[in-house]
Amino acid sequence: MKINGTPYRSVWPIGTDAFGIIDQTKLPHEFVTLTLRSAADAAHAIKSMQTRGAPLIGAVAAYGLALAIRADPSDEALERALHRLAETRPTAINLKWALWRMRGALLNQPRAERATRAWAEAKLIADEDAAMCEAIGRHGLAIIQDLAAQKQRKLNILTHCNAGWLATVDWGTALAPIYMAHDAGIALHVWVDETRPRGQGAALTAFELGAHGVAHTIIADNAGGHYMQAGEVDMCIVGTDRVTANADVANKIGTYLKALAAKDNGVPFYVALPSSTIDWTLQSGRDIPIEERSSDELLKMTGRTPSGSILTVEIAAPGSPGANPGFDVTPARLVTGFITERGTCAATQQGLRGLFPAA
Amino acid sequence: MKINGTPYRSVWPIGTDAFGIIDQTKLPHEFVTLTLRSAADAAHAIKSMQTRGAPLIGAVAAYGLALAIRADPSDEALERALHRLAETRPTAINLKWALWRMRGALLNQPRAERATRAWAEAKLIADEDAAMCEAIGRHGLAIIQDLAAQKQRKLNILTHCNAGWLATVDWGTALAPIYMAHDAGIALHVWVDETRPRGQGAALTAFELGAHGVAHTIIADNAGGHYMQAGEVDMCIVGTDRVTANADVANKIGTYLKALAAKDNGVPFYVALPSSTIDWTLQSGRDIPIEERSSDELLKMTGRTPSGSILTVEIAAPGSPGANPGFDVTPARLVTGFITERGTCAATQQGLRGLFPAA
Repeated sequence: MKINGTPYRSVWPIGTDAFGIIDQTKLPHEFVTLTLRSAADAAHAIKSMQTRGAPLIGAVAAYGLALAIRADPSDEALERALHRLAETRPTAINLKWALWRMRGALLNQPRAERATRAWAEAKLIADEDAAMCEAIGRHGLAIIQDLAAQKQRKLNILTHCNAGWLATVDWGTALAPIYMAHDAGIALHVWVDETRPRGQGAALTAFELGAHGVAHTIIADNAGGHYMQAGEVDMCIVGTDRVTANADVANKIGTYLKALAAKDNGVPFYVALPSSTIDWTLQSGRDIPIEERSSDELLKMTGRTPSGSILTVEIAAPGSPGANPGFDVTPARLVTGFITERGTCAATQQGLRGLFPAA
Repeated sequence: MKINGTPYRSVWPIGTDAFGIIDQTKLPHEFVTLTLRSAADAAHAIKSMQTRGAPLIGAVAAYGLALAIRADPSDEALERALHRLAETRPTAINLKWALWRMRGALLNQPRAERATRAWAEAKLIADEDAAMCEAIGRHGLAIIQDLAAQKQRKLNILTHCNAGWLATVDWGTALAPIYMAHDAGIALHVWVDETRPRGQGAALTAFELGAHGVAHTIIADNAGGHYMQAGEVDMCIVGTDRVTANADVANKIGTYLKALAAKDNGVPFYVALPSSTIDWTLQSGRDIPIEERSSDELLKMTGRTPSGSILTVEIAAPGSPGANPGFDVTPARLVTGFITERGTCAATQQGLRGLFPAA
């Protein structure tokens, strides 16, 4: 997608021995790109959330593994790098999916060919992610078109956290249908949940939508229920970090509360995902590990000072502790449907299996 | 209640021509008291939220009206000051309740006596509020004692925004039972919702609880549902700015989302209030005016810099607009019960009328 007219992806190869990312911890205050040259660089970038978003960290981990293989093509080095990268974030499943796909493409291959194969496979994962998100966009667009035809007025769509192109390689998951609807001339406006504690809605989703010219308004995470009660939300679309076999949805903390409010007010609640986000090995959302992150993310905030510098301030009562679970699980019963690269389906095991029988 | 061992109220008379408040916009970073000398001072303090909390702004408005009467005891001056003060905040009903009570105590009284009567009535409103909150605390304590006996372990209680002594004259509404339970030796821990955008949970509730020695943890507003799903919330208690005749509850934005999550997880959800918060003239929460506040509260954050100064930073994507509704309405069906100065009751019109038949 474009920033001020310039096309960007959120990860890109640089020759065959490095790759680039946007430092998302600096957004929306500064636009900074980073060059990563090793698996250690990639692991650090994922762990520190310089790069984030379930689909994107899969692609970044794949590039990171490719750089590890370039440095040492042995099976031992492969396993070491794989585990190091897999441990960076516990909740998103795309990370493990991408790493195991890389492993499958490299084991039993001649060591002399591994670096070339690994780089090609990482690029393929990234390109496929972009293509999957574009397909998600097309399928989601059909839902928005139907809703627009039904309502005959400007649509209000609520989203939580950032599931836009910054969270994937390109297009985004939840935002892909919104971009396509906007480009197709459908009148719409997006309610952007701030998404505390890290504020990826206010920082990243608002940045993305603004750069693309999509009308939007940032709201506190507390406000979405009120707007749904007032009839000012026609639809919710969110992304996800992991969907279990029974169609439960792990996503950024607070998603569950919005899904409850959507259900209570008859607002359709869609989850957009590439199939790499489905974890067929887990029967229920209760089994998903929930990442506990530093309370600094909650107790401090970073922003622009009146003089234009970037500063972090402590916002809470001095001495009070904080807790910071990164994700929650939205039960399948609260989800209207999934939007995947193969089309839409009910949020049930049968629905998922209907689209992905062989997975 | 006490701060570092010194007893404080949140509003206090200074002679008969001024009164004091704590500047709550400076908390938790600085503890600053203000002396207010006119109705205009009081109106500014309420509007700017230097003083806030539904019961407290009633008492502050009463003192403000008393100062107006001291300056000019005419009926016209009374009406002017009353309307000026009533318009400062639209959602909380206690404000209007206190002002109309003052009006009733002053109209048809000799002008020469009005200043003295007004001052006495304002003090009475403040003292009665403290007594009502103490009674709320006793009735809520009984609920917590029952729960502690049932669970036989440390209780986890979740609260939203600040309904502590800083929101009332003393004790608080939602926090009064918690203070009494803590003082009675019941093992408990409070989940403190940050309560964006103004962060009154992280700033004021955490400050209050910390100063009194009550164990607590600040969490993002997004996190409460997750902890309820995990069985880590035994009870929710919140305050309210207005309860309508059908028992709907207006309270700080986001309360509705927590009530939905409590219902979904079988967690009792209590609302604590003095009867001055009941608006018998409105049949339903849909009729309550919801205050729309400045988007600056959402898009900027104030905190302590590493060097110890207080600074406001812009946190969101530059150029993105924000919207900031201050309150939402929790339907009575989601409320387990009310805790009032006369005891507890069901969240129904019958329940309220059972306790307050003559109101």
